[in-house]
Amino acid sequence: MEAYQNTALSPEERAKDLLGRMTLKEKVGQLNQRLYGFRIYERQGEEFTLTDEFKEEVERMGGLGGLYGLYRADPWADKDEKTGIVPELSAKAYNMVQHYVMEHSRFGIPMMMSSECPHGHQALGGGLLPVNLAAGATFDPALLSEGYKACGKQLKSGHVELALMSALDMARDPRWGRSEECYSEDPCLAAAMAKAAVTGMQSTGVGSVAKHFCAQGETTGGVNASAARIGERELREIHFPSAKACCEAGVEGIMAAYNEIDGVYCHRNAWLLRDVLRGEMGFDGIVMADGLAVDFLKNTEGDTLHAAVAARKAGVDVSLWDEAFGRLGEAVDQGLLEESQIDEAVLRVLKLKFEKGLFEHPYMEENMLSPEEAGIPEVSLALARESAVLLKNEKTVLPLAKKYKKVAVIGYHAADRYCMLGDYTPPVPESECVTVLQGMKQEAPDGVKVSYAMGSGFSEADEHEKAKAMALAEESDVIVAVVGGSSSRFGGAVFDANGAASKGTGSRSMDCGEGMDTAKVHIPAAQEELIAALARLGKPLVTVVIAGRAYCIEKIENASDAVLYAFYPGPMGGRAVAELLYGSSNPSGRLPVSMPRHVGQIPVCYNYRTSVAPAYCDMTSQPLHTFGEGRSYTTFTGSDVSVTKEENGISVSFTVENTGNMAGTSVPCLYVRKRSGGVVARIKELKAFTRIALAPGEKKEAVFHLTKEELNFVQIPGKPEVICHEYELMLEDGAEKWWTGNVTEM
Amino acid sequence: MEAYQNTALSPEERAKDLLGRMTLKEKVGQLNQRLYGFRIYERQGEEFTLTDEFKEEVERMGGLGGLYGLYRADPWADKDEKTGIVPELSAKAYNMVQHYVMEHSRFGIPMMMSSECPHGHQALGGGLLPVNLAAGATFDPALLSEGYKACGKQLKSGHVELALMSALDMARDPRWGRSEECYSEDPCLAAAMAKAAVTGMQSTGVGSVAKHFCAQGETTGGVNASAARIGERELREIHFPSAKACCEAGVEGIMAAYNEIDGVYCHRNAWLLRDVLRGEMGFDGIVMADGLAVDFLKNTEGDTLHAAVAARKAGVDVSLWDEAFGRLGEAVDQGLLEESQIDEAVLRVLKLKFEKGLFEHPYMEENMLSPEEAGIPEVSLALARESAVLLKNEKTVLPLAKKYKKVAVIGYHAADRYCMLGDYTPPVPESECVTVLQGMKQEAPDGVKVSYAMGSGFSEADEHEKAKAMALAEESDVIVAVVGGSSSRFGGAVFDANGAASKGTGSRSMDCGEGMDTAKVHIPAAQEELIAALARLGKPLVTVVIAGRAYCIEKIENASDAVLYAFYPGPMGGRAVAELLYGSSNPSGRLPVSMPRHVGQIPVCYNYRTSVAPAYCDMTSQPLHTFGEGRSYTTFTGSDVSVTKEENGISVSFTVENTGNMAGTSVPCLYVRKRSGGVVARIKELKAFTRIALAPGEKKEAVFHLTKEELNFVQIPGKPEVICHEYELMLEDGAEKWWTGNVTEM
Repeated sequence: MEAYQNTALSPEERAKDLLGRMTLKEKVGQLNQRLYGFRIYERQGEEFTLTDEFKEEVERMGGLGGLYGLYRADPWADKDEKTGIVPELSAKAYNMVQHYVMEHSRFGIPMMMSSECPHGHQALGGGLLPVNLAAGATFDPALLSEGYKACGKQLKSGHVELALMSALDMARDPRWGRSEECYSEDPCLAAAMAKAAVTGMQSTGVGSVAKHFCAQGETTGGVNASAARIGERELREIHFPSAKACCEAGVEGIMAAYNEIDGVYCHRNAWLLRDVLRGEMGFDGIVMADGLAVDFLKNTEGDTLHAAVAARKAGVDVSLWDEAFGRLGEAVDQGLLEESQIDEAVLRVLKLKFEKGLFEHPYMEENMLSPEEAGIPEVSLALARESAVLLKNEKTVLPLAKKYKKVAVIGYHAADRYCMLGDYTPPVPESECVTVLQGMKQEAPDGVKVSYAMGSGFSEADEHEKAKAMALAEESDVIVAVVGGSSSRFGGAVFDANGAASKGTGSRSMDCGEGMDTAKVHIPAAQEELIAALARLGKPLVTVVIAGRAYCIEKIENASDAVLYAFYPGPMGGRAVAELLYGSSNPSGRLPVSMPRHVGQIPVCYNYRTSVAPAYCDMTSQPLHTFGEGRSYTTFTGSDVSVTKEENGISVSFTVENTGNMAGTSVPCLYVRKRSGGVVARIKELKAFTRIALAPGEKKEAVFHLTKEELNFVQIPGKPEVICHEYELMLEDGAEKWWTGNVTEM
Repeated sequence: MEAYQNTALSPEERAKDLLGRMTLKEKVGQLNQRLYGFRIYERQGEEFTLTDEFKEEVERMGGLGGLYGLYRADPWADKDEKTGIVPELSAKAYNMVQHYVMEHSRFGIPMMMSSECPHGHQALGGGLLPVNLAAGATFDPALLSEGYKACGKQLKSGHVELALMSALDMARDPRWGRSEECYSEDPCLAAAMAKAAVTGMQSTGVGSVAKHFCAQGETTGGVNASAARIGERELREIHFPSAKACCEAGVEGIMAAYNEIDGVYCHRNAWLLRDVLRGEMGFDGIVMADGLAVDFLKNTEGDTLHAAVAARKAGVDVSLWDEAFGRLGEAVDQGLLEESQIDEAVLRVLKLKFEKGLFEHPYMEENMLSPEEAGIPEVSLALARESAVLLKNEKTVLPLAKKYKKVAVIGYHAADRYCMLGDYTPPVPESECVTVLQGMKQEAPDGVKVSYAMGSGFSEADEHEKAKAMALAEESDVIVAVVGGSSSRFGGAVFDANGAASKGTGSRSMDCGEGMDTAKVHIPAAQEELIAALARLGKPLVTVVIAGRAYCIEKIENASDAVLYAFYPGPMGGRAVAELLYGSSNPSGRLPVSMPRHVGQIPVCYNYRTSVAPAYCDMTSQPLHTFGEGRSYTTFTGSDVSVTKEENGISVSFTVENTGNMAGTSVPCLYVRKRSGGVVARIKELKAFTRIALAPGEKKEAVFHLTKEELNFVQIPGKPEVICHEYELMLEDGAEKWWTGNVTEM
């Protein structure tokens, strides 16, 4: 038995031994993930054949390091239930691929599989959660952790070693189509959610590759992958916390971001990927490139050879789809890289494979679990329930009273399941989803009739449909209009080489998601006009907005009696929305992003710096809604606030009471404003939050602990330390400001 | 005779001697400029009395270091021809103040006077130029230099030692109300103009205080004085060049900017004011605070005492209006500052006073020159003529043919002189201005009748006026609509303590200027509706837009046959516009800023980085017009381009030909795109430009010289050198792309 085969040795020892035996070609092979996994096979009935392209790649690489997206299915991948890997064939397909790889590797090194899991597995039979922006609205990291644990179970059963998870991007500009992949505009909330997601996933043995590092949300003009023009302090305050939290959770992979920061691409930024990520944050996993991103470095390096050299030197370990990393051997031959610079990355990959037990258990014995078997739908429903945000409720039209015998459900979004699911979604059978219309029918009390009319297409007005909807609305007691944006790839979207919807194209069902950036930040005009027409009827009008970003909805909101804003709530979203509208659940979502009235107000993030308060001469600078807002059917008060200095910080204890007539959940948030220190403070910074479920009249105590480091300014290495000695504290829930106080001389 | 009185000694020697004799109180007095000069006197007929506040200040300071704005007159200053210092009383008023100061200074130290001159002197009788954004549109630094030379003559005659000149701000977001004070979005053009302005001014012996340093145009959301969130490379590439150019011109003063950069206020940023400004740029003058800006540091320093300490340590020499710098003595007494840290700044002030000859010539012997005596109106007219940009000219409606016998001039802006002048404007007599209506009447050929109707108020629709305008238009042969924005303070604006229009207020004649930031970037709706109504008549419609920023004018432009965009063209603007419309001058202005179609496209600056091309799914990402665009009544071609490598760079020579039937001026521009170097290049960077006047059929040769340093990436001290070896060159005029070529291995 060779040392690398000896399971008594540590993964690192085994990896080192194996590395010492490998040729440069074999090493380079371990760093490449060039194939689109969904294209390496063809399915005929229940049989699969491997493509020549796959076989040639295995030959070229002396094996296969990683394989991306074997199970991926969506309109870009062009795989569906007929042509793709359905769960009941998953073991057969996977084993065939793995067998071929190991047989053609001199040392029988298994491939390691990565799959998209930004909000569930993008595979046939993959279970889905609400998108990240919805998860952020729950302010419930523990529940999200359960969600990713369930997803992890499914991935693990499909022999996926690495889950590619949106976890690091910040929602700083609603024009950006990938806003839905962010947890929040706020770094504290986002970091807590990211850490919870990674922790949940990795508890199943599946590694997370948290993406994207760094500052991809800091777009120029909301355009995807554009320049982040910010300085180091902004970078550290807003964009580093999620990555730091993931590193604390022991995240096994980090994906570099497409964008540049102040002129330097993340994929060639050694300060970012080495000094900060490994040095400061203690990251010990693999850095994966984003799809084709190393090739994109041609823009600054001239050709793919030099692109590969720059990326490897900067700290990229494993590439994705690109040509460049295939040339790493050539780079060593030409003296552009030392072989030791290859070894560094290969060692990380091999160590991870040993850690994952891949050498001992390279094959699947059972097929991939169904969502139900993994327990995904119930967590998905719970998240959806907690994520919808009640923004308006005048004349207490909600919860819907039994007196509304005739309910008109109107709108494209009430009956189209894909517009609820977000981007990076596989084909999902109808039976796995509950639309709002279905949910409303299920939840309606006896004697209530729920009827439906579409009213308009997603983006096209339709006079015939509109007339039907108006007629239905006119004879109903209440109107529930369901409108919004959509990231559905299932309506004729076209795609770029990296699988993103092609920039600036739009499609008949897509105005959001990767590549779908908007200048106007409005839902399609046809839907806005439908709401306006419905409002003119003077009937009680409840509007549900389904969205992947913060749209400018002032007109819609003014026209409606109640507004429930649901960031893509996932397959169970329709049921969750119906429960909330009927009051069998009480809304507890809070806005994870501020909502502008007009795109000209952007940025509207709540945590701006205090050097100047925004103000415009042609309209208010106040956003329509601010981060943290969200109503309930009951009311809460916070009181008995007490601040105690602790050895390394403070604790803030308080009592929350449900002062209304209905059980509900309060979301107390502690904000801080720094009052000294020489650096311009932010007007408010979220530092702690929790969820407290309370029966009517019930009181509960809670306490937040904050360390000095959490309270103080972020430090910039090499610059003088900045210390704040005076803080203002604010305890709030939603728009309710319960208490403010000061702490000095920490 | 004491050494400091000895004119045979150098200013520095004299200053050192004097400094050695002064008390701490007297020293601190030299660093303060606390008074609003226009409030230190009261005028009764032809007599002046000095206020108690002034006398107390002189007592408190043991003299007076600097005095701001003695001559200032505007609605904020609340001084006009009756109550302010008119030119014929200027010597009397000034001498009285100076006399009092010297008499109450132990060493007879004269005060040094600073005055606003952002586009001419903001004083009664002050001559005005077009605003900076108009000056930028001329692409004619030599002419601008003449303009400031003329202004300098006037200031010199009024014994103004320091002219506060907008010179450093960059127009990066049209929402910002101070866009008009910027030369351009482009650093090359802006730097050339700033240098020319400073050179012209200082040639008269008046020192320039170039403002503001740094990055004030890099707002958050277009809001004045808000956070510049950018990184160091963006700062160096876009915002440093103007300051560097001014330092090369030997600028005597630099004013710090209100804003913070990445969390640090400019007024307490020692890296910026010392390392960069003095260290890298070789600046040797005085750093002046902006109005009240040191007091504003309370936000990070706690109180004005610590604010003063932070500002002085960072490098602020002289303050403006604030309480804080009055406490510098206290700071030394408390050990927060060394006295040597006071001396450093006092020495600079005293040296400047000796250099200016203030000790030898403290008084005025004659009154301030009139604009005509200083030669301001003719340069102002020439600048206005060159600055208007012809954006559209379909059916060659322009130049206006003689066949148009009845010309309807319509619009608020055709007859209101203040809306042509920009912010920081004194009361100006009607006789000193030519409105567009007056200009049109003067320029109209015999037999042509020019009639006027207002059509709407500045921002309020007026149905009666509109009806009159429509009736007039209907019976005319051509309509000249004159619309736009306005920075006129003369229509009921309210002001903040620093003299800026109060944020978010608006007034009946102000939607631009300091404090007037807009979220929507449209001219007032009443005017847009007027244009739409006029367009429906189907008559030839020429629209002149008067503006201090790039408004979204797509609808207006589509409705018009021709559009002439005139950034506030100054008092002679109406004549210039009329000459251009009638063709006695040929338009040669080029856009100094790109013009968005919609505010959601912002930023639209032409020189974005190549890492990603902007694209939106709901509209084009293309701006309506791009930096450099501008039409002529004739046509030009560029040819015979030849690139020669020189010892330290390249030269690009070429021939320009007027291929049309009318004399005109071409504005050839050389752009560069970097093709290697590891840093993300910008899509285009202007590197050289010139103006070439050509008779019909005439040809001229021209040559641009570029050094390697001008071509290469900006370097960041402490970071590895970045070198570009491959360049793409582009020779263009306006939207005409004449030639592209490549240069390698510089």
